[in-house]
Amino acid sequence: MKNFLIIKKSLFIFIFSLWITIPSIAQTDIDSTKILKYKNISQQIVTSALNERLGYKMLRSLCRIGPRLSGSKNSLIAINWAYNKMQEMGFDSVWKQPVKVPHWERGDVEEAVLNDSAKVHFKKLSILSLGGSVGTTEEGITAKVIEVKTFDELEKRRDEARGKIVFFSRPLDQATVNTFTSYGNAVDQRVYGANEGAKYGAVGMLVRSITTQYDNVPHTGVMIYADSLPKIPAAALGYTDADFLSSALKEDPNLTVSLKLNCKTLPDVQSYNVIGEIKGSEFPDEIILMGGHIDSWDVGEGAHDDGAGCTQAMEVVDLFKRLNITPKRTIRVVLFINEENGGRGGKTYASFADSSNQIHIAAIESDRGAFTPRGFTINSDSTALLEKLESWLPYLQTANIDWIRNGGSGSDISKLKKAKLLFGYIPDCQRYFDFHHSAKDIFNVINPRELELGTSAMTILTYLLSEEGI
Amino acid sequence: MKNFLIIKKSLFIFIFSLWITIPSIAQTDIDSTKILKYKNISQQIVTSALNERLGYKMLRSLCRIGPRLSGSKNSLIAINWAYNKMQEMGFDSVWKQPVKVPHWERGDVEEAVLNDSAKVHFKKLSILSLGGSVGTTEEGITAKVIEVKTFDELEKRRDEARGKIVFFSRPLDQATVNTFTSYGNAVDQRVYGANEGAKYGAVGMLVRSITTQYDNVPHTGVMIYADSLPKIPAAALGYTDADFLSSALKEDPNLTVSLKLNCKTLPDVQSYNVIGEIKGSEFPDEIILMGGHIDSWDVGEGAHDDGAGCTQAMEVVDLFKRLNITPKRTIRVVLFINEENGGRGGKTYASFADSSNQIHIAAIESDRGAFTPRGFTINSDSTALLEKLESWLPYLQTANIDWIRNGGSGSDISKLKKAKLLFGYIPDCQRYFDFHHSAKDIFNVINPRELELGTSAMTILTYLLSEEGI
Repeated sequence: MKNFLIIKKSLFIFIFSLWITIPSIAQTDIDSTKILKYKNISQQIVTSALNERLGYKMLRSLCRIGPRLSGSKNSLIAINWAYNKMQEMGFDSVWKQPVKVPHWERGDVEEAVLNDSAKVHFKKLSILSLGGSVGTTEEGITAKVIEVKTFDELEKRRDEARGKIVFFSRPLDQATVNTFTSYGNAVDQRVYGANEGAKYGAVGMLVRSITTQYDNVPHTGVMIYADSLPKIPAAALGYTDADFLSSALKEDPNLTVSLKLNCKTLPDVQSYNVIGEIKGSEFPDEIILMGGHIDSWDVGEGAHDDGAGCTQAMEVVDLFKRLNITPKRTIRVVLFINEENGGRGGKTYASFADSSNQIHIAAIESDRGAFTPRGFTINSDSTALLEKLESWLPYLQTANIDWIRNGGSGSDISKLKKAKLLFGYIPDCQRYFDFHHSAKDIFNVINPRELELGTSAMTILTYLLSEEGI
Repeated sequence: MKNFLIIKKSLFIFIFSLWITIPSIAQTDIDSTKILKYKNISQQIVTSALNERLGYKMLRSLCRIGPRLSGSKNSLIAINWAYNKMQEMGFDSVWKQPVKVPHWERGDVEEAVLNDSAKVHFKKLSILSLGGSVGTTEEGITAKVIEVKTFDELEKRRDEARGKIVFFSRPLDQATVNTFTSYGNAVDQRVYGANEGAKYGAVGMLVRSITTQYDNVPHTGVMIYADSLPKIPAAALGYTDADFLSSALKEDPNLTVSLKLNCKTLPDVQSYNVIGEIKGSEFPDEIILMGGHIDSWDVGEGAHDDGAGCTQAMEVVDLFKRLNITPKRTIRVVLFINEENGGRGGKTYASFADSSNQIHIAAIESDRGAFTPRGFTINSDSTALLEKLESWLPYLQTANIDWIRNGGSGSDISKLKKAKLLFGYIPDCQRYFDFHHSAKDIFNVINPRELELGTSAMTILTYLLSEEGI
């Protein structure tokens, strides 16, 4: 692609062409001075974010700490990093909100070996214990394997499960365009699979990694035990090893898998949400919240999930400061702890917020990775509200936002009962589950332009909310 | 991001939710049976593309040939690969259209060394000769360097240029969201910089690589000599070496660069466009053309530029065949040769097409990489036409297409004077110039879902054009 035709196309023409596509705004109550001002500020935000890349630089620092599972030493280092960074950046106030969090440790033994029934061939399988899993005894467990695709299939074959390792092998459906939908349709196996196995006497659980990528890097994630059932150890298998095990079982249904894990849950420990804000000049008690989660899984670096959301939210405030924009309403950044395995940060903040005299007029969560912007979702189906927000699209398009639709927000802010409007920031979702909860979610896979356009989109939205209210 | 809330959301609900967003279609002349049929076929196309990944597999084969510069042996291997592949795939007819193309070779000497003026320190610079450049003599050239940002600046400082290497260092502007616009605003340096230097007696030309990535991998591309001016050798510098040279010049304006290149232009050679089609059942003389270019630069593997466009176009036809859809109009795939350094394939095809009795009712070019779909552009500003095409968005959204806008199509199909409507397929552009024309443009950086969604979008559009005409 050489594209000679656009050589002479100047930035002016580009901006002008955006401008002529917004006749609808003339019909709103925003006068033309405002339109020019908003257009101008939106462009300044995008220019500064793409040139300065502060969020990208902060994400590099955050990722250098290493993974940040709730309760770990790293998570406290990251919390202090964020606290200090917000102070350095000149936030009006910064504080840590205490939250008691679970403390699960992976340990240093994590082995699964496939033995054929003749005990001639062995293959080491690529696994990761699931977050929250119990370990095995020191000698491990060795058992035959029953492969199923669904809980229904397991129930039908319940008599075969006793004493075996149950292997859930249903892959994420690649044919669905929205990968979050496919993930949602597969993740029951990981979260509740151990319980379902335990119901019928299984002694261990393996689950095919829930990912869009056909490789052998395992993807972990939370699992939950029912109090009423035995706790059996559970691990995620690399995608191609799940294929291998599945084929091997067809040839040799009596093969066994030996599983050794020494992960364990320790007593809850003290942790914190990190909160920082700049005060609104006209309506200081009206809050616009920007959230991401500071914890991550304990593999990789939590770059997309959700270091990106944290540093995007922090840079939103910095963009106001470096462009000398004084917000009319208070902008508050909340970096939630424990989104991944308990959601306690979100709960603690919500109880605080819902009992406060301050009004959360809007909350925006970024927890879908640092990919190119597509849109925002809102938790309202009011046509009037949607029309008002759509009248802002000419500004948001400056940062590659194409739409605003009714939809979910994010797991931390969705706990805010009294917030007037919840937004989800929706970047493109095609690559997210390539990295999610795995050793591949590292700083190196972040595209700085895509990250910074997300930040720009969130900043423009925040600016307009701060000026206009809802 | 764990997203428990969507665990129970089934594919049915997903499809239903798309369905209820298309009331506008009821007002068109498409009856409800058609709506259902189109919806159903669009979904089948996306499902099959994402599950089968045929285009991705073909792209792997194509990339294994290596880079495919016009006139090279590899380019002929790739042409035969495509010809044979289309025959295997059961196209109704496949042929090669002769095109005489330029034959430039990089050679095996490509060196640039920076020497400080005291001749104490040396640094090897990371370069790639520009396509079309002459070589140096065997002993090379050693000269002082004049750094400029624009042709205007060079003209003002014309007296300083004689006997020097002119170094164009203006970077691609990262602050513009549309990277094709930024590329267009920087590429004059690469294409015409040698001429501008030669005007004022410069003996060589270096240009900062035109890329969005801050690393040291050089990006090549075409350059053009004016017949009236001396031909001086020209090369692209890695981005960080351009920074290095720029800093070094500030400290030591008398430093020299020694340049040795043995690239050369050989006589034109015979090459081919590869053309294949399936006949329309009702209007066989109405053509819907799908185009990409089979040539690439001679580094990397031409994966995004434009192996992706070629295999996407080929898979469009295969999707019709594997879903048993008989198109009413003829679907023709044209893999153009020589887009990169001459555009002769496009010209040859256009003369043929414009003198034919067949009517090209539409042509679609994919030459912006295998990234996630955003929209289609059309070379018409007719409101009625745009409204008609926008009534197809509910189907196109199945493949992640958010909009249809007036805009350019692509450099090969834009030569078709008599085609009724030209479309550009527009994927997201944030990452394209990370890879473009460099050793980084390899199969390994292609995301299969993003590639296949592009194919799906093109197939749905082709299907609707084939059913409805324009």
